[in-house]
Formats: sequence, structure tokens, C-alpha cells
Amino acid sequence: MQFETNKNTIPKIKQLISAKKDLHLSEMLAELHHVDLAEILDEIDFESAIYIFKLLDSEKTSDILTELDDDTRERILKVLSAKEIAEEIDELETDDAADIIAELPEEKKEIVISQLDDVEHAKDIVDLLRYDEHSAGGLMGKELVKVYEDWSIFTCVREMRRQAENIDKVHTVYVVDDHEILKGILSLKSMLTTSTKAPIKEIYNDSVISVKVDEDDEEVAKVMQKYDLIVLPVVDEMGRLVGKITIDDIVDVIKDEAEKDYQLAAGLTEDVEADDTIFQLIRGRLPWLILGLFGGLGSVFIMQDFEGIMQNDALKKLFFFTPLIAAMAGNVGVQSSAIVVQGLANDIIKGSLWNRLLKEISLSLINGIILALLILVFGQIMQYDIYFSLAVAISLISVIIIASLIGTFVPIILDKRGIDPALATGPFITTSNDIFGIFIFFYIAKLMLGF
Amino acid sequence: MQFETNKNTIPKIKQLISAKKDLHLSEMLAELHHVDLAEILDEIDFESAIYIFKLLDSEKTSDILTELDDDTRERILKVLSAKEIAEEIDELETDDAADIIAELPEEKKEIVISQLDDVEHAKDIVDLLRYDEHSAGGLMGKELVKVYEDWSIFTCVREMRRQAENIDKVHTVYVVDDHEILKGILSLKSMLTTSTKAPIKEIYNDSVISVKVDEDDEEVAKVMQKYDLIVLPVVDEMGRLVGKITIDDIVDVIKDEAEKDYQLAAGLTEDVEADDTIFQLIRGRLPWLILGLFGGLGSVFIMQDFEGIMQNDALKKLFFFTPLIAAMAGNVGVQSSAIVVQGLANDIIKGSLWNRLLKEISLSLINGIILALLILVFGQIMQYDIYFSLAVAISLISVIIIASLIGTFVPIILDKRGIDPALATGPFITTSNDIFGIFIFFYIAKLMLGF
Repeated sequence: MQFETNKNTIPKIKQLISAKKDLHLSEMLAELHHVDLAEILDEIDFESAIYIFKLLDSEKTSDILTELDDDTRERILKVLSAKEIAEEIDELETDDAADIIAELPEEKKEIVISQLDDVEHAKDIVDLLRYDEHSAGGLMGKELVKVYEDWSIFTCVREMRRQAENIDKVHTVYVVDDHEILKGILSLKSMLTTSTKAPIKEIYNDSVISVKVDEDDEEVAKVMQKYDLIVLPVVDEMGRLVGKITIDDIVDVIKDEAEKDYQLAAGLTEDVEADDTIFQLIRGRLPWLILGLFGGLGSVFIMQDFEGIMQNDALKKLFFFTPLIAAMAGNVGVQSSAIVVQGLANDIIKGSLWNRLLKEISLSLINGIILALLILVFGQIMQYDIYFSLAVAISLISVIIIASLIGTFVPIILDKRGIDPALATGPFITTSNDIFGIFIFFYIAKLMLGF
Repeated sequence: MQFETNKNTIPKIKQLISAKKDLHLSEMLAELHHVDLAEILDEIDFESAIYIFKLLDSEKTSDILTELDDDTRERILKVLSAKEIAEEIDELETDDAADIIAELPEEKKEIVISQLDDVEHAKDIVDLLRYDEHSAGGLMGKELVKVYEDWSIFTCVREMRRQAENIDKVHTVYVVDDHEILKGILSLKSMLTTSTKAPIKEIYNDSVISVKVDEDDEEVAKVMQKYDLIVLPVVDEMGRLVGKITIDDIVDVIKDEAEKDYQLAAGLTEDVEADDTIFQLIRGRLPWLILGLFGGLGSVFIMQDFEGIMQNDALKKLFFFTPLIAAMAGNVGVQSSAIVVQGLANDIIKGSLWNRLLKEISLSLINGIILALLILVFGQIMQYDIYFSLAVAISLISVIIIASLIGTFVPIILDKRGIDPALATGPFITTSNDIFGIFIFFYIAKLMLGF
């Protein structure tokens, strides 16, 4: 929707560039939101992107920098001098600033930092660079409005006026004690509705949820989602307030997490997008296909063992059912594993393993019996021998039960061992279930039909 | 993590209930966050849940109600009288209130509304009930702080004090004209840093992003994510400010959307969770399994046509490769469709269909050739006839190309026709690709080996 608009803007921009109508172009660009401008720079040829970038003022370009695709940003930063980058960084909030500096090559990093205007700002950024990008510290910004519990509302408003000049959006006012330890929050509502002489100590809300600076980002996302938080204070080991995380950064964590699981379930290594280069796409897709190929070659071996029954007019039909058996084993496995992976992600796998085992077996048994009945009907229509149909039907039930158990327990075991359970969905479970399925199918048939 | 804590709390609570130590229990419950209390009520037996619920004061119970699982809430609401429900509703913000009332049976709905204390609040709730739950109107709340552009900051602060008494969290101050038409936003920063006599007209920010009340919720989620918004004003057809949507409601939309795609890709109809009843789980899983079964029976028909080659010692080996071919066709199809579905969801499917076709064919050709080489190596090791191996290898390449084209274009076509493209992932694409794959495999082998 929005994209269509930007798509129409690009030809107009290119026209203005080639006609050298800078003034007209500037006017047009000034109308656009920095997020849309970033989208345009990602789309347009690089030469035009640089041209536009140089034409914009640094307040807008710094915002654009944070929104660009990684590769466009990398290319633009390469063209800019350390001085120019420092000017962009000066305009940014500490968390965005640290993210951009972290992407620079080592030598350039130090030069850029040394060129920053505001020493306090530079200190905060360097401080943030210490944290792992997947921790609360890596997500947080240092900008926050902080008041001391001994102040009156009057002092507080005066101080907020001073602090607010450096902060774009005031989300929450935090209350700390003399040792900078987080005590609570002060709501705008209570400030507006209480006498200005009241001490903060008496009106602040002391039930504040916070996270430790080294908390994992997915855990932070869970806390913010669970308690519907828009901003979350971050404290150090001693409980001192060191920063805050806003929900917009967490939205990205939630989305990335969901997409990662989706891609793994679909047999893509992470981070493949429709617009990546062919080489990137091959790297994302080929490994799982090779895994699938080896699985398929495994079934070739199993079936070779049963080559002999191809001479038997009744038994040879078993081979016709191998893709069906493999498909059912694969589908059941993916269903079971997906439910478990999602349950683990949302912390809703409750009850004992034993209950889960029982539930999964009953479920597969019922599904298996319904599908087996359909196979029997099919066998009657095709006028197969009833014992043959029964053998196929019963081995189908067994395959379904075993496939669902594999699908259920492999992710649970991985999770207990600290491995991402989402790895056990998709091609991994399909491939292993294909082999197990075909193996079980032939052996049960052998047992029942006695060949 | 948090859940473990609540798990330990439950036995303690049950003990206090059976010992009738209400005072002690009340103290313990008062310490807990309403989100945790909701989690406990979802977990504990229903009798204890009701006991706890009646013990808590209505400010806390109303917050708990909005956080409960749908079925726990339904059971609790059944036990409460219309008067009691109305008291809970009185405490809630309009969007949560409307959501709960919408869940009540028709007769109870009207009685509850008639019992509400605050007429303005009741009007707002009834107003919200008109909107589709998957639209901006269905997500928004009516609580907002609104000032007129002609006011001075002084008047504005006075009015905000008055309005804020009814509002828990002041997110943003909206500026409207005499006709209630949304003009812009007033930042706390500009209020804090400008003289109190300045007219709002001169200091408000007029570049405000808003959505129409009938906008689809997924579109709203995209806008809020794209522009990193924490709160988004909603306007009617004339541009009049009618409500606001906060990001915490959108986080749920984003998560639900991602989970829906994931579940469809895994062959689950929507909304199946690990803790659903067996019957719900069967309903979620069986339809796709039946689809897979019919696909498998389709391959039985195709293979029956080639029954004759089982007499030929060289050719009969083709049958050993059918699960491999089906698996590769399925995996490739799921990979391609997942990339397209995700690209469509994120609006990053760019360029013409023709380019996409070309890219997908080159990609599959390269992947196919690599996998075909592996097949040739395998054939050499197994001492297969070279023509046989070549036939398998070349049909594998063809199957991969066609499977990836099906995986790419089916979701694109569904999307163009307004059908959710995620339907075309998972079992749907695997099943159809299984059949196509086996069909192509045997016919190309026939062509090459001349049987």
C-alpha cells in the first residue's frame, strides 16, 4: 500500500535528479517521512541514493540511516567520512547510535567516536557497545527522565524541563534513590493531579517491573508482552537504573523470532528473503535439500532389501504405497513438532511428559484409525486382497503413532539440552520420519503377510 | 521462568483456601501482579479460582478479567451476576470493556450495559461494539487526551489535569480543531520547554500518522511497525479523531498473524495449542492428513501404470527412488512458498513476475544440478547402469524446477485473488508436489530409458 506510493515516487525523483532540479527535489523530499525515504533509498540505484542523501539535512539523514536495509546502510557509510558519520551519530538516540557504530570496521569506529560532539553522549554510546546485541543491554537506550525520591513535584518538573530538552519522547519518569537504585515510576497523571509541593516519595508507584542488563532479548520480549509494557527499565546487578527498552525495539525481536521459526519449519536457514541474491538463496536452501536427499537415499537402501517381493503380484503393490507412507509420516511429524515448538515458545507446555506421551498416542491412534479406514475403503474399491489392505492400514497406524512421538519428543529433548527446538521441525523431522516410516511399513507388512 | 514462580504459588494458595485463612491469602494475593493472578486462575481448579476472584477487590479483578484465557473468562462470567459484571466493566478502559461485553450472550449484554455507572463510559463502549473486531475500530480505545488548537499551553495543562483523572496512562496529547478534526500532536517535550502562554497552534507537530476506523487490523499492524509508533490515532471518514490504538494490542495482532502462518505451514488449521483437548487437536490436524492421504493414493495410481517395469531388473530400481523424489519435490515446494508468503507479508516482493520466474528457475537449476551430481556419485557407488543414474538425475532436476515454480506461483496467484497465500504452504504444496513429482519422474525416465 505504502510501497505503491514510494514506487511511483522513484521515477519522479530520478527525473528531477537528471534534470538537476535540486530545489524542486528538496521540496519533494521534505514532504516524505524518513521511513519512506529509507525505503526509497533501499530501492533506487546507489548513485541516486547518495545524491538524495547528500541533499537532505542531517536531522533527517540520521533517522534514515537507522531505517535502511543493512546492505544499503553499509554502502552509504563506506562513502561517508568519519566526520560525516559522527555528525549523523550526534543526532541519534544512544541505542540507534551504538547499533550503527557497531557495524563500522574497527579502525573507523574509533575515529568516529573521537569526532563526536557531545562527550556525555559519546560516553553513553561507548558504554552500550559493551553489551551483547541479544541482551537487554544491547537493546536499551540511555535516554530517560529520572528524578530523586526526595524531590518535590515542583523541583521535579523543573528538572524534567531540563532533561527533556535532550530527549525526543518522554515515556516514563523513573524515581531513584541517592544511590541511583530504581525505586518506582511517577505517572504523568499523579503529577498532574497532585499539589506541586508534595514530595515524590509520597506519590510514586513502587511496583515497577524491570530487567537485568544481561537478560536475554527473547526473555525481555516475553516480559514486555506478558505485562503489556511500552517501556521497560533496565537495571545493573546492584539494581541501579542504567537504561530503558521501548516496545518498538521488542516488536522487531518478536517478529524476527517468529520468522526464524517459520523459516526453519520451511527448510530455510535463517535470514533468507525473497529479494536476496541467488547465491544467498542457494546457501539458505541447499543444506536442507541435501539432508532430504540423504534421507531419500536411506529409503533406497531399505527398499532394496525387499526387492524380492517385486516378483509377487500381490506384494509388489506395497511399493506403490511408499510415497504415501513417507508423506504421512512427514506430515504427522511436522504437525506434532510445530505444536510443541510453539508451545515451548509461549511457555504453555504444561503437565508431565508422561501425560503428554499419553495424549499424543491417543491422538495419533484416533487419527490413524480414521486414515486406516479410508485405506481399507480404497483397498475394497481397488479389489485388493483384504489381508494386503489390512497390512497397509495397520502399518499406517503404527507409522503415524511413531512419527508423532518423534515429532513431539525430539523438540522437547533439544529444548531441555538448550538447543533451539525449532531446528527439529521441517525437513529434519520429515526426513527422519520418511526413513523410519518406510522401515516400519515394510517390517510390519512382512510380519503380517509373512514374506 | 515467571511461570515456575506461579506454579509454586498454587499449592500454597490451595492450602490457605482449605485452611480458610482468608486474611493471610488476601495479603499474599495483594503482592501479585494481575497478569500473574490471571495465570494462576487459568491453572488452578475452577472452584478455587472463583474463591480467589471473590476475595480480590474489583480494581484488580477487572484487570485480571482482560488477561484470562477465553474459556476461564467465559466460565467466571457465567457465575457472575449482570450487576457484578457491570462493576468490573466500570473499572476497565473502553477497548477492554467492549471486548468483554462482546463475548457475553445477547440477553446478558443489554442488562450489563444498562447497569453501567458512568453514562459517557457506557456510550463509548456501545460505540466500540459497532466495529468489526479485525478493524482499527475494533482495536481502538476511546480514552485520549485531546486539546483544541486555539488553546494556550496554560489552558491545555488545566484541561489535561481534568481529563487525566479518567485516564491511566497519558500516551500522547492530540490537537484537534473546532470540528474535532485531527490536526497534530503536542509533545510533552514542547509543553515542558515552551512558555505557558504560547498558543498550541504555534507549537504542535502537524505531521501525524493516523488510520481510518475501518482499516484492517493487519494493515494497522504494518503501519505501526513501519513507523515505529507506540500509539496511533484513529479518525473517521471526515478525519475526526475517534480513538487511539496502543502498540500492546498490535503486538498480539503481529504474533497471531505470525503463528497463523506457522501453523498453516505445519499443516495445522489455525488456533491449535499444545494444551487443547484431544478433540480440538484432531480437528486441527486430521483435515490436512486426509489431504495428504488422497495425495498418496494419487501416487499409487501413477505407479500402477508402471507396474510392468518391475519385471525388469534394471528398471525396477526406479521404484526405490519414489520417496526420494516425493520428498525433494515437497521440500523444494515448501521452501519456495515460504519465501514468497513471507515476502508478501512484509511487502518485499518487488520486481516483475517475469524476473521472479527467471530467478526461481536459475536457482532451482543450480540446486538441482548439485543434487543430481550427488545422485550420480551414489549411482556409481551402487554400480548402477550409468543411463539409469542419468535418468534419475535429470528427472530430479526437472522435478525440482517444476516444484519450485508451483511453490512460487500458487501463493502469488492466491494473493492476487485475495486468498491468504499461507494456505498454499505446508501439506497443500507438499501433497500436490508429491504427485507431480512422481508423475514427472516416471515419464522422464520412460522417455530417457525407452520403456
